[in-house]
Amino acid sequence: MAEAARHDKTARQLRLLSDALDSGRLGPVRRLVNTLSPAEIGNLLESLPHDKRMIVWGLVDPDDDGEVLVHVGDEVREGLIADMDPDELVAAVEDLDIDDLADLVEDLPDTVIDEILKSMDRENRERLEQALSYEEDTAGRLMNPDVVTVRADTTVDVVLRFLRLRGELPEHTDHLYVVNRRHQLMGWVALQDLVTREPGTAINQLIDDSLTALHVSESAQEVARQFSDHDWVSAPVVDDGNVLRGRITIDDVVDIIREQAEHQALGAAGLDEDEDLFSPIRRAVRGRVAWLGVNLLTAFMAAFVIGRFEATIDQIVALAVLMPIVAGIGGNAAVQVLTLMVRGLALGQVGASNAGILLWKELRVALINGVLIGALVGTVALAWFHDWVLSLVIGAALVINFSCAALAGVLMPLLLRRMRIDPAVAGTVVVTAVTDVVGFFSFLGLATVILLR
Amino acid sequence: MAEAARHDKTARQLRLLSDALDSGRLGPVRRLVNTLSPAEIGNLLESLPHDKRMIVWGLVDPDDDGEVLVHVGDEVREGLIADMDPDELVAAVEDLDIDDLADLVEDLPDTVIDEILKSMDRENRERLEQALSYEEDTAGRLMNPDVVTVRADTTVDVVLRFLRLRGELPEHTDHLYVVNRRHQLMGWVALQDLVTREPGTAINQLIDDSLTALHVSESAQEVARQFSDHDWVSAPVVDDGNVLRGRITIDDVVDIIREQAEHQALGAAGLDEDEDLFSPIRRAVRGRVAWLGVNLLTAFMAAFVIGRFEATIDQIVALAVLMPIVAGIGGNAAVQVLTLMVRGLALGQVGASNAGILLWKELRVALINGVLIGALVGTVALAWFHDWVLSLVIGAALVINFSCAALAGVLMPLLLRRMRIDPAVAGTVVVTAVTDVVGFFSFLGLATVILLR
Repeated sequence: MAEAARHDKTARQLRLLSDALDSGRLGPVRRLVNTLSPAEIGNLLESLPHDKRMIVWGLVDPDDDGEVLVHVGDEVREGLIADMDPDELVAAVEDLDIDDLADLVEDLPDTVIDEILKSMDRENRERLEQALSYEEDTAGRLMNPDVVTVRADTTVDVVLRFLRLRGELPEHTDHLYVVNRRHQLMGWVALQDLVTREPGTAINQLIDDSLTALHVSESAQEVARQFSDHDWVSAPVVDDGNVLRGRITIDDVVDIIREQAEHQALGAAGLDEDEDLFSPIRRAVRGRVAWLGVNLLTAFMAAFVIGRFEATIDQIVALAVLMPIVAGIGGNAAVQVLTLMVRGLALGQVGASNAGILLWKELRVALINGVLIGALVGTVALAWFHDWVLSLVIGAALVINFSCAALAGVLMPLLLRRMRIDPAVAGTVVVTAVTDVVGFFSFLGLATVILLR
Repeated sequence: MAEAARHDKTARQLRLLSDALDSGRLGPVRRLVNTLSPAEIGNLLESLPHDKRMIVWGLVDPDDDGEVLVHVGDEVREGLIADMDPDELVAAVEDLDIDDLADLVEDLPDTVIDEILKSMDRENRERLEQALSYEEDTAGRLMNPDVVTVRADTTVDVVLRFLRLRGELPEHTDHLYVVNRRHQLMGWVALQDLVTREPGTAINQLIDDSLTALHVSESAQEVARQFSDHDWVSAPVVDDGNVLRGRITIDDVVDIIREQAEHQALGAAGLDEDEDLFSPIRRAVRGRVAWLGVNLLTAFMAAFVIGRFEATIDQIVALAVLMPIVAGIGGNAAVQVLTLMVRGLALGQVGASNAGILLWKELRVALINGVLIGALVGTVALAWFHDWVLSLVIGAALVINFSCAALAGVLMPLLLRRMRIDPAVAGTVVVTAVTDVVGFFSFLGLATVILLR
């Protein structure tokens, strides 16, 4: 029930929308679309083929245009931007937060960027330039420079009066930052404390300085980990001089975590995360064919190994029938070990200090699984081909391939990481190349030595 | 640099700890461990083999014990709990939030549960029982019943005085909930408004009732999506009668998102998320062998197909050399399509209304990729075996298998979903079974018809 219900809302919206679009009655579509949040509209646009996407995009409330652009993938975004004239674009993005704007800037035409820079006051222009000076996927790029700061030598009462004068706070403000004259971060004060403590309480007494701030150069992944480890809703970002530069909020962190998970899932299949459901054919072909080429290379390696044993296969055709089993199951076993290792590496749980123990554990697991699966396959092979030596050969080859699967599964991700290659992306090809080659070689090799004696 | 730095912190801690443990000097270990947050300690414990884990667990500050138990996987948790005597356990968990306690309860011995229930006041006991009455992975189970409520017919000033009397607020309180006499939810007021509006402002004027609350029966995944779509930090949970039952906070949602991503990554390799790096051998074998068995079944299906063509292979051994290429690359292509579909389904972007358009798009991509890869493989095969008919056969088989890969990649996840099977978990086995069978059948079948005419 839950499983079905969970998808119902979006699916129902899609169906309604689709029907309304097909009927050409755009009034209901407009009403439906504008009940959604910008993130939901973004999601909806991504699920539509190009022509319908453009119709719906034209119906989105112009006030939401900027936020929607922030919430779609790079490729869909390019398409939407291409559809807008410069004036519309300037109007859509000029009110965005600096961090969102910095995120969009690369996709905007130069004329639009110039226009936006001109429309900004000096402070915001400097902030945008500052944001763009940090590398992508660092805390500096993720942070929003809009922070509320207070001094330590004041009281709750004074701060509350200051806040009433100031008016609205930046979204997700759960802390005010305490800075000195040089804007260096001294600590922070929880909004909760301001509303629960007596008005006369000195800010000094409420300062929390137990946590270290994030540094502008910290990577997005490290930022996400710190947020998870400390259950933060927002965190301050400082530069080398401990000067407060901005703050990162949990909503951006949630996006980071989602993107990382997506990157890993798509990367493992050789897709880049910008490929959307309705990417143009040409783009989809280009994006995927390189990866298929890499896999083809490993497939040829395996074929080459088999080629060495043509004479053996010529004499015992049963080998050709059974050999994909040895290679295939070995690959499955290797991917299991690899997946555990990739998770361990991502969580920082695997390092030089425990790799040896892990390898030893995985080798024992592989030996047991190899013997179990080997015995099973051997038995089936015996029933099929009535040749108990062939049975023994395939059993032995499976034990060998399972052991190699454990070796490759543990060592390859460590090796790839050392070579600065993401094991979540490249791991599967590499370990299955090993198990294919070892699988065919051990099975056909043993057969040549033992069966053709 | 960033890539390396990001893992350095945890890796360094691990190494330091490992060295200190080996040297037997526990003082430094204790100091190091107790500078960490409970989540970090949990992560550290998961990265240690059993004996070292138990030593470090003994050094954790008893005040942190409960929080650490919340932050480790089920299996590690069982081990840690088994190591504690009932008194320690009661002391560790009795101060946890109700939602965390509900999460732990299943792993606690009955005597400890009785003890904890006895030590609780009536209100908390009822709350725990209430929490346990909801299904796992629903909003009811995830929520914390500890909420701050106010009445609509009052002012900012009065609320601030009430909060000062009340003292500390529940973690991540960014809204107060406005309820009527029957505790039904009327809307909510942002803490931000309380500190920025004039003291005399009526709460009535500040109520936000634009968003719908979560329902106790909503699934964890739907909760996570709503949080992402609306950038919430916390959200109220109500029952059928719109009575406020509790609130869910973003930190729990971050955990849900992480767990979902993990479930997907591990599930696709046939692992359950509770298998940790140092699971006992027996557990690791049991957890993995069933999955290998399923894959074995599909491998035998493929072998059976090959077996039908023994006579053909007996005459042209080159077929045995080349056939794994057709099956393997087809599998890679299918997994690419599958991965896009699984993401689309998870985001609610794929439904009956666009499946047809998607299939048509994927078939065209497959045709182009099939022709490209087919031509490449055909050329290599020609250079290798000097048989242009064989070349044509393998090229044609690849085009056929790519088309089937697109069909299976688009349709299988939809079919699995309809059968209430998670396509993220079962998808890969199913689609590669299709491409293996079709790959071998089309290649060997064409060869039989054309080459052995």
